[in-house]
Amino acid sequence: MFNSIGLIAKRGDPRVKDTLQSLVRYLQQQNLDIVIDAPSSRLLLEKSLRIAANTEALGTQCELIIVIGGDGTLLQAARLLAKYDVALLGINLGRLGFLTDICPTQMESYLDEILGGAFLEEDRFLIYAEVYRDGQCIAHSNALNDMVIHRWNMAHMLAFETTINGHLVNRQRSDGLVIATPTGSTAYALSGGGPIIHPSLNALVLVSICPHTLSNRPIVVDGDSCITVTIDPYQAGQAQLSCDGVLVQQVIPGDRIVVEKRQHIRLIHPQGHDHYATLRAKLDWGKAV
Amino acid sequence: MFNSIGLIAKRGDPRVKDTLQSLVRYLQQQNLDIVIDAPSSRLLLEKSLRIAANTEALGTQCELIIVIGGDGTLLQAARLLAKYDVALLGINLGRLGFLTDICPTQMESYLDEILGGAFLEEDRFLIYAEVYRDGQCIAHSNALNDMVIHRWNMAHMLAFETTINGHLVNRQRSDGLVIATPTGSTAYALSGGGPIIHPSLNALVLVSICPHTLSNRPIVVDGDSCITVTIDPYQAGQAQLSCDGVLVQQVIPGDRIVVEKRQHIRLIHPQGHDHYATLRAKLDWGKAV
Amino acid sequence: MFNSIGLIAKRGDPRVKDTLQSLVRYLQQQNLDIVIDAPSSRLLLEKSLRIAANTEALGTQCELIIVIGGDGTLLQAARLLAKYDVALLGINLGRLGFLTDICPTQMESYLDEILGGAFLEEDRFLIYAEVYRDGQCIAHSNALNDMVIHRWNMAHMLAFETTINGHLVNRQRSDGLVIATPTGSTAYALSGGGPIIHPSLNALVLVSICPHTLSNRPIVVDGDSCITVTIDPYQAGQAQLSCDGVLVQQVIPGDRIVVEKRQHIRLIHPQGHDHYATLRAKLDWGKAV
Amino acid sequence: MFNSIGLIAKRGDPRVKDTLQSLVRYLQQQNLDIVIDAPSSRLLLEKSLRIAANTEALGTQCELIIVIGGDGTLLQAARLLAKYDVALLGINLGRLGFLTDICPTQMESYLDEILGGAFLEEDRFLIYAEVYRDGQCIAHSNALNDMVIHRWNMAHMLAFETTINGHLVNRQRSDGLVIATPTGSTAYALSGGGPIIHPSLNALVLVSICPHTLSNRPIVVDGDSCITVTIDPYQAGQAQLSCDGVLVQQVIPGDRIVVEKRQHIRLIHPQGHDHYATLRAKLDWGKAV
Repeated sequence: MFNSIGLIAKRGDPRVKDTLQSLVRYLQQQNLDIVIDAPSSRLLLEKSLRIAANTEALGTQCELIIVIGGDGTLLQAARLLAKYDVALLGINLGRLGFLTDICPTQMESYLDEILGGAFLEEDRFLIYAEVYRDGQCIAHSNALNDMVIHRWNMAHMLAFETTINGHLVNRQRSDGLVIATPTGSTAYALSGGGPIIHPSLNALVLVSICPHTLSNRPIVVDGDSCITVTIDPYQAGQAQLSCDGVLVQQVIPGDRIVVEKRQHIRLIHPQGHDHYATLRAKLDWGKAV
Repeated sequence: MFNSIGLIAKRGDPRVKDTLQSLVRYLQQQNLDIVIDAPSSRLLLEKSLRIAANTEALGTQCELIIVIGGDGTLLQAARLLAKYDVALLGINLGRLGFLTDICPTQMESYLDEILGGAFLEEDRFLIYAEVYRDGQCIAHSNALNDMVIHRWNMAHMLAFETTINGHLVNRQRSDGLVIATPTGSTAYALSGGGPIIHPSLNALVLVSICPHTLSNRPIVVDGDSCITVTIDPYQAGQAQLSCDGVLVQQVIPGDRIVVEKRQHIRLIHPQGHDHYATLRAKLDWGKAV
Repeated sequence: MFNSIGLIAKRGDPRVKDTLQSLVRYLQQQNLDIVIDAPSSRLLLEKSLRIAANTEALGTQCELIIVIGGDGTLLQAARLLAKYDVALLGINLGRLGFLTDICPTQMESYLDEILGGAFLEEDRFLIYAEVYRDGQCIAHSNALNDMVIHRWNMAHMLAFETTINGHLVNRQRSDGLVIATPTGSTAYALSGGGPIIHPSLNALVLVSICPHTLSNRPIVVDGDSCITVTIDPYQAGQAQLSCDGVLVQQVIPGDRIVVEKRQHIRLIHPQGHDHYATLRAKLDWGKAV
Repeated sequence: MFNSIGLIAKRGDPRVKDTLQSLVRYLQQQNLDIVIDAPSSRLLLEKSLRIAANTEALGTQCELIIVIGGDGTLLQAARLLAKYDVALLGINLGRLGFLTDICPTQMESYLDEILGGAFLEEDRFLIYAEVYRDGQCIAHSNALNDMVIHRWNMAHMLAFETTINGHLVNRQRSDGLVIATPTGSTAYALSGGGPIIHPSLNALVLVSICPHTLSNRPIVVDGDSCITVTIDPYQAGQAQLSCDGVLVQQVIPGDRIVVEKRQHIRLIHPQGHDHYATLRAKLDWGKAV
């Protein structure tokens, strides 16, 4: 199974320390090969661990990388590690996440099972966004959740044109557009009115933010689609491209953003993990009828 | 290509007559084998055509079936013909449909191309709903667009439980539930707040109608999912199961509806057909920014 | 203040009995004049209470009527009592209601205050719906929450025309229309996508249910508006008019429903009652940011 | 009636010139006192008109001010003129506006009526937003449509607390908040999911933009409410306050924005003007059932 384990802990959150210490102790008892990234290692008194310079270095050395933190920490790790063929396991800080679904109190019993080979493995794909200006790619990033183009320094709505596989979808004016994976369908896209998409589905969803046209609706398309968004050149101002909430590039009228599926991670869950149970818990569906 | 052509015309709409006459004349000129269903044949003066007793009889005799009418006429034909391996082509009555995308004035030039072998063929799958009461299947139907369970003679909201592939999704109270194919995503599910799903995607969408829980959202799942809806037994009243808007069965507390993908039709479009162009036209997205 | 107190308990819910007994005992200790409606009196062993034949008889004899049950019980009482100038106080069965905001465990301390003259009094208006067929009023009802016209035995969407103060609003096809008071804005209208309206506002909201036109939106108008809904005569089938969820009349094509504000009740709350606190609790807004 | 007429034309749009010339000629034929603002006067060859230095100067000299342009031009004029007791009339550039509802081809016949005393006069109120930092008011502006607080340079959602008349409404995380007048309910608030509010209603609507809590809903409150929005001090980054789409102030964590109704304008319409007809035209409700 997993012989070399990498460890990443959320930065700047003191709650992570105890869980990290317990986890290290537990893994040492199992005689596993442990590597920790440098920033996380500073949280530990234990100084005998092998240290990787950064998250990406873990990717070359480990078969399983355990992330302690919230969904944001796992998202960041996933983006950095997607180019390696690694498995990711998320331990949350006490509050269930969509991606970090093991809580610290259950950590050891679940790890017993997982390290013993009893686990679920889910493939989650990422998307890749490239920004073209005057024919040149000036910025690019991957994203596990979503890519968002949002007006920024602009007096009016953002005007842009969307195509899918070369077919015009529409020209619209809105605050922006979210292109989300199934993983990201429960994040920002959901706040914008998008549907929940089961993570096993090979699909992307386009959600317009505050669209000017009242008949605009979220669109779900094949996950292997190539989507382009071209910012209308006849307007003034700037917009922003973010991937998983991280600013990637200021975009200006005339820029074109190309988005496609690329890369994937393997997300490890305990046996019996149930995506709908997580939805019920996170979205407050748990109430009795 | 298509040597035997079946014809179905919308019932009870006088506008269909001229188009049907022109179509018959055109097809006769091409020396094609024409079969018409009995009700449609009564619209014609021309009495030499081969007549099929009903829509289903066309399925055993024809390679291409041309439907003149609106989306509703094509939906009905599709449900009846899905068990045969036939191709369907829809000619509308002057108002563009999602399924009937050839308008009468363009009919002949498009048919020249299509009968010459130049066309697009799209696979559209249907779903199948079965109603179980006390362990027995008491009713069943297929649907190209959607299956709707809606409260009917009930003072309060309908309480029911939904599972997907055996996993509980939620227990909810609402006016009902739509389970739609991508084809049906632009029909009733859209009025209920569901997303648009590209017809090429193998997916189903579940849309709750007026859900009591404000955090309820449409859910898009794999098209090969098995969905069950069990009506809460501890309530009074009746609900209705409809398939493509046609009442299939009164359902009562304790009934279980099982929905799965089954059957498909081949939908023929002119070359250059573009689903997004239809969306723009039908949903009024066509306005300039 | 309040010298004569009427009592109404929810029918058919055994949980109400203990609270009712405690309430009677408490009120007897205050030497107040107590009248109970006949059905509620059967829940009590205590046989010395003055009994009113029904809810309406309470209206002629009491200054304050205390309702034990859920919002549904208070709604029904309000409709029956709106023609009398009475004050209503709601005690819930342990689960906070929008209208029944005193929980049984706090009942006595709140009643001490309220009967001592320290309370908030809110005016809540009702609406009145009349159904006209061939110029004749064939049915009418008041409603504290809402009036709903919903398609019932109809294959297609319901087509109807809405006017406000004689001005055409629109002709639409949908599953139906909710016309709600501010009180009803947190009930069915909310499930249909309507806004929350503060109870102090003199307004009505019209919410279409699953409208065919995607640009349809809820409309908020002056509370003193006269609204008419005329069912399109050129369709087949039946619809239903309900007031506060109670079926009032089957309506048929050509029928006209006229809705106007009429009557009011005085709703008593403990001092310090805060509508937004109730919203946060009921709608799960209470979570920390 | 109106003896002194002020004229304002949209800046930078060549289409305005012909309409402005025709309007001046028409008004001169009526022997009316005409004043034009300096920037608009440059569009005319006619050099004998009385010129006001700016929009505000018109407010002190004119009884009726005619604005030629789109809704944006009228919004701006309204904000500048709200402190004077003036009447405003909007002539659009060929495309119907919510505020500029006279099209150039009908201009003369409508003006005949209006100047003859046959018109509708509508009162439209404005809101006033003040930004407080460390107890000091650092910025303020009025708005006819809406006031928007929107996150700007912020990695995460904006966290803020809203009160109405001193009562906590909620603490939320979202992209921002729109507070709109009935006039503004058909503008940005509508794109964000808010209801349409009839202009005669004394109400304000609060619409959250992409709220994190799925049970968040638009709230309609009394127009005389005092609303405060306090930006959560425990976050990093900046937000922006805009009034009618114009940037007023960068706001930072800890800032408090206070919003209240203040000022009004009188909007002049031709007799027979019907707000619902405008809604139907602008929102594409005009289609036959």
